[in-house]
Order: sequence, then C-alpha cells, then structure tokens
Amino acid sequence: MGEDMGAERSETQTAIMEATYRALCEHGYADLTMQAIADEFSKSKSLIHYHYDTKEELLVAFLDYLLDGFLTKVEETDDSDDPRERLTTLVDILLSGPEKSEEFQIAMLEFRSQVPYVEAYQEAFTANDRRLVTLLADTIAEGIETGAFRDVDPERAAETILVMIDGARSRSVLFGDGDTVAHTREAIDSYVRSHLVAGGE
Amino acid sequence: MGEDMGAERSETQTAIMEATYRALCEHGYADLTMQAIADEFSKSKSLIHYHYDTKEELLVAFLDYLLDGFLTKVEETDDSDDPRERLTTLVDILLSGPEKSEEFQIAMLEFRSQVPYVEAYQEAFTANDRRLVTLLADTIAEGIETGAFRDVDPERAAETILVMIDGARSRSVLFGDGDTVAHTREAIDSYVRSHLVAGGE
Repeated sequence: MGEDMGAERSETQTAIMEATYRALCEHGYADLTMQAIADEFSKSKSLIHYHYDTKEELLVAFLDYLLDGFLTKVEETDDSDDPRERLTTLVDILLSGPEKSEEFQIAMLEFRSQVPYVEAYQEAFTANDRRLVTLLADTIAEGIETGAFRDVDPERAAETILVMIDGARSRSVLFGDGDTVAHTREAIDSYVRSHLVAGGE
Repeated sequence: MGEDMGAERSETQTAIMEATYRALCEHGYADLTMQAIADEFSKSKSLIHYHYDTKEELLVAFLDYLLDGFLTKVEETDDSDDPRERLTTLVDILLSGPEKSEEFQIAMLEFRSQVPYVEAYQEAFTANDRRLVTLLADTIAEGIETGAFRDVDPERAAETILVMIDGARSRSVLFGDGDTVAHTREAIDSYVRSHLVAGGE
C-alpha cells in the first residue's frame, strides 16, 4: 500500500486514497463521509472534490487503488518462474488480504454487501474479480503448458480457489476464528495437489 | 419455510417471521423497519411490539426461524442412513440457501455484514453456524465410524465445506454468476471423494 502504481494516479490522488483507507478503518463503511475522508487528508477538502465529484466515484477509484496494491505485492513477492510456486504466492497474498487491519476488513465486508444496490460498485468489484480470476487462470494455464498441472479448465480451477478464499475471509471476519484462514490455506494446497498437480491423484 | 418447528414459536410469532421475510425481500436489510414488517403482517402492529421489544430482538428470532426452516428441510429430505449420502443432502440444501429469492439473499448478505457491529447478531449468526458445523461434523464422524470416511478431523472437514458454501453463495449474489453454485457443488463433491472417502486418493 501507499505506493503509486496506477499510471494515472497523481501524488495528491494517492494521498486521498490513503486518507480513505484510514477513514474506513476509523468509521467503517456505513459512516464514511467525504468529511471523514477530508479529516484524514492533510490538504484542503476542496482538492478531494476537485478530483472526485462524489463519494461513489472516490470509492470506485479506491477499489482500483486496492487492486494496484495487490498487484504490486505480487510483483514484489513473486520471483519464481515455477507456476506452482507462483500459484502458492498468489493464494497467500489473496488470503492475507489487502491489509491486516481487522477494522478495514470489517469495513470492506460491508462495502461489498452494497454491490447489489450500486451499479458502479458492482462494475468495479466485478472488474477487480475478473482481474484476479485471470491472474490465477493464467498461472494455471502456464502450469498446464509446462506439464506441471493436468489439463483442467484454468478458469474453473481459478474460480474454485477464489470461492475458498472469499469464504475463508468472510468467515474469519464474521466469526473471528483465527484458524479459518490457515486451515483454508491448507485446504487450497490440498486441492492444488489432488486436482491440479499432474499425477497428483 | 412457513412451518412452525420451534417448540416455543406461536402461530402469531410464525406469522411475524413470515412478514419479516417478505419485508426483507421488499425493502432489503438497510431499509427494514418495524413499520415495514407491520405492513406485511395481517394483524395489529402492537402484536409485533408485544412479542419483540426491538427490531434487533425480532431479527435474532428471525435467524432462529431460518435455522429451523433449514433443519426441517433436512429432516424432510434426508431419508438415508448412509453418511455419505446424508452429507451430499446437507451440502445441497446449504448451497441452495434458505430461499431461492435473489432479493432475500441480497438482504441476508447485508444483514450478515452487520455482524461485527451488533453483538446480538454476532451471537445469533455464530450460534447458527456452530449448529451447521456440528451437523456436518457429526455426519462425517458417523462416516468415519462406519468406515465410509477416512480418519480425518470431522470439525475441520466440516469447516472447509462451509468455507466453500459461504464463498459460493456470496460470490453468486455479488457477481450474479449462475454457475458458481453448481461448480462449487462439484468441487465439494470432489473434495469429499479425494479427502474423505476411504481409499479415495
């Protein structure tokens, strides 16, 4: 986080995104206002309005910023040419989430629940999710190419992994069971071994 | 739904639960008021207040009512002594959800996102979830006893299955992908075959 990866994101815009992150941790999603974001922003509130007409527009940009943060983390961590190792890295980063802060994860869960009501959020969350499906599916397809993985449907295997990641993250926020994420990491590992790895079953 | 399974739920209380269901479908969670529930209830609004002091109390009772509905469905459907068949039945019913209505599932997703903010909801959702974990784990333990399943940790296997069910249901509501649930049913089946069924791997 905190690094400007988006080609079109200025220093000011990045500072607004960081302020939005802090405001979400502080107030949660439901009580998030432009004023709450301005209170976390060191410069003038009018600058926020100059860049983002509405809270909706700002939050769509924030989702993009989160995805960039995730992709940066992937680039920094993934130093392997091996598709199976790369898949493990992606799963680890996705399971641990964009940020460890519990307050932030609670706020994001509530934000996500608004998707069916706000078209712009639906579009943004769906676009981010498609990027993640593609990233996982490409890695799986690469593994099929190299012979590391069996000839499965890459998109479908990616979807199954994301189903487990989403389930684990929401259950860990809702029920506060610290083992859920670790157990799911092992379950995904086991899925990879028995269903993807060539000769694994 | 609609059947009174709870020993302590009167006919009036059941009618209030049915009205709550309709009000949630109609208004979603955020706009649910006691008045909205009263509008769906054929008797006097004061009767609702007589039974439930607050909306919070009413919604906790509603979660209990949903769990009863699920357990009734399980009893009606499950006519097998075979633990593996019973597990399949439980997974099928849990995956299809308490109700097919999309509006209801959207409302429930938003309701669930309130868990971290309202202690009574956290208790109620957690208690329901424990019941489901136990129901699945007992079935798995029975299968271990009969030799149908390998000697796995029943609670952990139950948790993995619920992680997949929760992930599939929230993704299907959020991204509207009709295949997610069917694909996850197959993934769970595959998990059961390769990790639970004795000699399956």
